[in-house]
Amino acid sequence: MARLSDPAILIPDARAGDRRALGRLITIVENGDGIASDILAEVFPAGGQAWTTGLTGAPGAGKSTITSRLIAAARESVDEMAVVAVDPSSPFSGGAVLGDRVRMQDHIDDHGVYIRSMASRGHLGGIAAATPRVVALLDGIGFPEIAIETVGVGQAEVEIAGNADTTLVVVNPGWGDSVQAAKAGLLEIGDIFVVNKADRPGVGETVRDLTQMLELGEQSEWSPPIVPTVASTGEGVDELWRAIAEHRVFLKTSGRLDELRSRRLVAEMESALMTSLRDQVRSSVPAGEWAELTRRVAGRSVDPWSAATQLLGALGVASE
Amino acid sequence: MARLSDPAILIPDARAGDRRALGRLITIVENGDGIASDILAEVFPAGGQAWTTGLTGAPGAGKSTITSRLIAAARESVDEMAVVAVDPSSPFSGGAVLGDRVRMQDHIDDHGVYIRSMASRGHLGGIAAATPRVVALLDGIGFPEIAIETVGVGQAEVEIAGNADTTLVVVNPGWGDSVQAAKAGLLEIGDIFVVNKADRPGVGETVRDLTQMLELGEQSEWSPPIVPTVASTGEGVDELWRAIAEHRVFLKTSGRLDELRSRRLVAEMESALMTSLRDQVRSSVPAGEWAELTRRVAGRSVDPWSAATQLLGALGVASE
Repeated sequence: MARLSDPAILIPDARAGDRRALGRLITIVENGDGIASDILAEVFPAGGQAWTTGLTGAPGAGKSTITSRLIAAARESVDEMAVVAVDPSSPFSGGAVLGDRVRMQDHIDDHGVYIRSMASRGHLGGIAAATPRVVALLDGIGFPEIAIETVGVGQAEVEIAGNADTTLVVVNPGWGDSVQAAKAGLLEIGDIFVVNKADRPGVGETVRDLTQMLELGEQSEWSPPIVPTVASTGEGVDELWRAIAEHRVFLKTSGRLDELRSRRLVAEMESALMTSLRDQVRSSVPAGEWAELTRRVAGRSVDPWSAATQLLGALGVASE
Repeated sequence: MARLSDPAILIPDARAGDRRALGRLITIVENGDGIASDILAEVFPAGGQAWTTGLTGAPGAGKSTITSRLIAAARESVDEMAVVAVDPSSPFSGGAVLGDRVRMQDHIDDHGVYIRSMASRGHLGGIAAATPRVVALLDGIGFPEIAIETVGVGQAEVEIAGNADTTLVVVNPGWGDSVQAAKAGLLEIGDIFVVNKADRPGVGETVRDLTQMLELGEQSEWSPPIVPTVASTGEGVDELWRAIAEHRVFLKTSGRLDELRSRRLVAEMESALMTSLRDQVRSSVPAGEWAELTRRVAGRSVDPWSAATQLLGALGVASE
């Protein structure tokens, strides 16, 4: 059954539109097995073309409805689009999760749309490390548009959504929501703020609060627009696409896009290096020994620095 | 000149009150040389006794004046107190920086008070990694009270101040300040909020805003009190000490203190391990080669995963 795991077959199949082959490749990359780096390196030269859009905001803010609208808009100009739905709190994963299909059921029959959920697999480095690799894979396979939607606003999710070319922060009307957004660190990462469910009361106040809070921060070349929408009816969605298009033009003309992408690549190199090193330490030390050492450090019967030296020794690397 | 660097002499001298010996030990630990781990391991068994108080807030909020008040209060019950002033943006460091002495000049003649500034040395792991080690050193040398004051509210500073037993967040009256605190992530880490310069208008609104914002978050066993002070005159300072004392009682009686400290030790073990691994990679790869590889990754002429494998190879550790 070489076909099931051989990248030399899976990659061209995935590029030809075979979603099962693509799904297998993603699983390999997600699990971070040794072959994952080979796959990523193999598809890399064809990559660097995808536009990535991150969506974050509290659960229930309407991110999936906006993603669904984004798919519809994107599919007018591109053949294929991928959506990566990130849920660090869920132990389930896989491309066939019912939830995704329900959430984005408008596109269930559209072969040009590929939706994949990513959930915490408990592996080292975690979902925050795995997501950019899956996005790099989708980019290298040839998807020109990739949306990355997070379920909530945990630290990993904010980091993931903030790593896209354009990051949309979705809030709802009401004083609490904009402050919650501030607390979650969303004001720092948003390129565009969407006040969704704008048919509810309080939208004016929310726009004003966000405006004031954004003005308090450091000003940059790009002033994030705040766009009220009612994604369920489509109201405001055209304005949102215009804002996204303007942000893309800004990124290209200002040179920020190259800068952003270069920085992400270097961060990925360092992340890959540290993940490999950590994995190797973990695999060099029996799990029981690691747990025992952690317990002793927690109880102050071993100091953390001697424990670290002991773990380094297990890797066969002498401490300096 | 073995005396200058021999921990076997420096440690007992520092414990006997020799500030120059202590300063040398701190410098060694801060620089993260090989001997640093030995020093930390050596003093560790005597440690675990210090109470640590973190102070963070925007520049100009009055953290140093509050620290000075904290010193005065602490010195009524303990013989010695150490203050670590953290400034990641400054390239200068050392215990004799004029700024510290000016800021805390009330205590300049008090031999029981040891003030040390830490600034970014550009070394790997950075100031966020070095500060807990310096604090562990001061703890193991015998300081029963350690204050950790940050200059601003950058990410590293927030992380550092948040790692104390009790974290004080200092804001000033005015709508903007409480929102800035939220944006900087301070609402998540504050055990006690100090509205300093409370002789200025707007203190009631700030207390109310903070109260509302704190109520929006996840509730925990400890509800952070909000204490208005005028640190320059001493107004409200007694209430602040009461709040700090109550937090200490809470930490002890709830079991949170043991939990917090155990978690910090395990985090330190992992940080020490990763810092060592990273240092070893760096020292195995010529600086020019590292820069060249980074440049090539940034320019997409090498993929990040192959680059990471190349760096791992330099360490003599094969990729999995």
